[in-house]
Amino acid sequence: MNFLLLEPDECAGDGDSVIRGRRAEHLRTVLQAAVGTTLRVGVINGQLGTATVTSLDANEANLRIELLEQPPPLRDTLLLAVPRPKVLMRMLAHAAAMGFARIVLFRSWRVDKTWMQSRALDTKVQREQLLLGLEQAGRTQLPELLRFDLFKPMVEDELPGLDLPHPRFVAHPYAATPTHQLAAIPTASGNQPGFTLAIGPDGGFLPYEVDKLIEAGFHAISCGPHALRTETALAALWGQLDLLRQRK
Amino acid sequence: MNFLLLEPDECAGDGDSVIRGRRAEHLRTVLQAAVGTTLRVGVINGQLGTATVTSLDANEANLRIELLEQPPPLRDTLLLAVPRPKVLMRMLAHAAAMGFARIVLFRSWRVDKTWMQSRALDTKVQREQLLLGLEQAGRTQLPELLRFDLFKPMVEDELPGLDLPHPRFVAHPYAATPTHQLAAIPTASGNQPGFTLAIGPDGGFLPYEVDKLIEAGFHAISCGPHALRTETALAALWGQLDLLRQRK
Repeated sequence: MNFLLLEPDECAGDGDSVIRGRRAEHLRTVLQAAVGTTLRVGVINGQLGTATVTSLDANEANLRIELLEQPPPLRDTLLLAVPRPKVLMRMLAHAAAMGFARIVLFRSWRVDKTWMQSRALDTKVQREQLLLGLEQAGRTQLPELLRFDLFKPMVEDELPGLDLPHPRFVAHPYAATPTHQLAAIPTASGNQPGFTLAIGPDGGFLPYEVDKLIEAGFHAISCGPHALRTETALAALWGQLDLLRQRK
Repeated sequence: MNFLLLEPDECAGDGDSVIRGRRAEHLRTVLQAAVGTTLRVGVINGQLGTATVTSLDANEANLRIELLEQPPPLRDTLLLAVPRPKVLMRMLAHAAAMGFARIVLFRSWRVDKTWMQSRALDTKVQREQLLLGLEQAGRTQLPELLRFDLFKPMVEDELPGLDLPHPRFVAHPYAATPTHQLAAIPTASGNQPGFTLAIGPDGGFLPYEVDKLIEAGFHAISCGPHALRTETALAALWGQLDLLRQRK
């Protein structure tokens, strides 16, 4: 079923809701809704439910909203070395769709300095990408975004205060545990369920950087001897860690 | 270590090899090679080894090649409903990096007809994308590419002759087995090791199409209740199936 994500000011709760302009047009042309159509809806950072279209033209749609469920708790944190701007945009959408609660963007040695000034670091642009990912996946919770421009102060001074969930993994092709040898991941370890996954830049972390992350409680893992692009590695490793978490 | 992929006519075997033009320039500026640099090399559809740069200028590089190993046997087949052209280009590179032996492109009901005429269906363009993926992953074997424009004749008449490896999976978000409940995948089942993975278009297969694939020996699997983009789903599912294959 198609999924429509509503801004909180479009939907105060159960009852009638109006959407306008480009979004009404999207509903009509892309989601091919008509009067009587029922859609799955979610409110950004809020509940999930259904909407029935009660009227619809090119400018405006009226919806009867019924909010039915709380979104699932999000647990995982992604540490991501800033990739090329276009790739970052896509990876933000991917990460939101996968259900990361937090995305920590940072600069490491092999991150091009100019990428830190790109449009993809603009929080408004990032929000749009995150919303695309949420809409794709039928989720409502926007991941929290953090940004650190210096690697060493991040690891030494900032990470300890972030209370990153355990286990913590850093993707690293060399001297790492193959993911197929990892033990199952406990589904809830006290009050810090979930996992942390750190992904380096294309070309990888420096050995020094991996060592700093290991000191901070990360385990080096690898999904095989063939290096993958960061975008592919994120999805492959997330899939594997999520499977290990759910497998009894 | 950086990896350089050579055309067979650039490298007849062990001994000296010359590369020219844009590729010599790439070696010098992107891979930052100099005289004496040793690189990992591979010959397209051939062996892997090392190359030492013996001379290098803007137009030409001379390499001393030593071929040391056969590439690993490739086993897996990807059936991919043709996505939007830009996404297809990226997914071909991803699939080559993941080590698929064969990629079967096809049209299903929700594949836009115009996408079948796009530049991304041009075999020369596709080869470039595959080479990018191989170079990224340090692989040499080009996946075989097949294309079918009609779904029903493909499943009924063509698939039986392709001898697709078992187990066969089709990604389908509904009424499917969650991947974390799958049994371990046997590493070699007689003379047909590997697996087959079918990925539908955004919006998914029709129920009729899934039923046809199930009749053809496919199992419907899902990596969770949240639909992912085909690009994310490919990497996540490949990661999970590869892990289940390697896990003892």
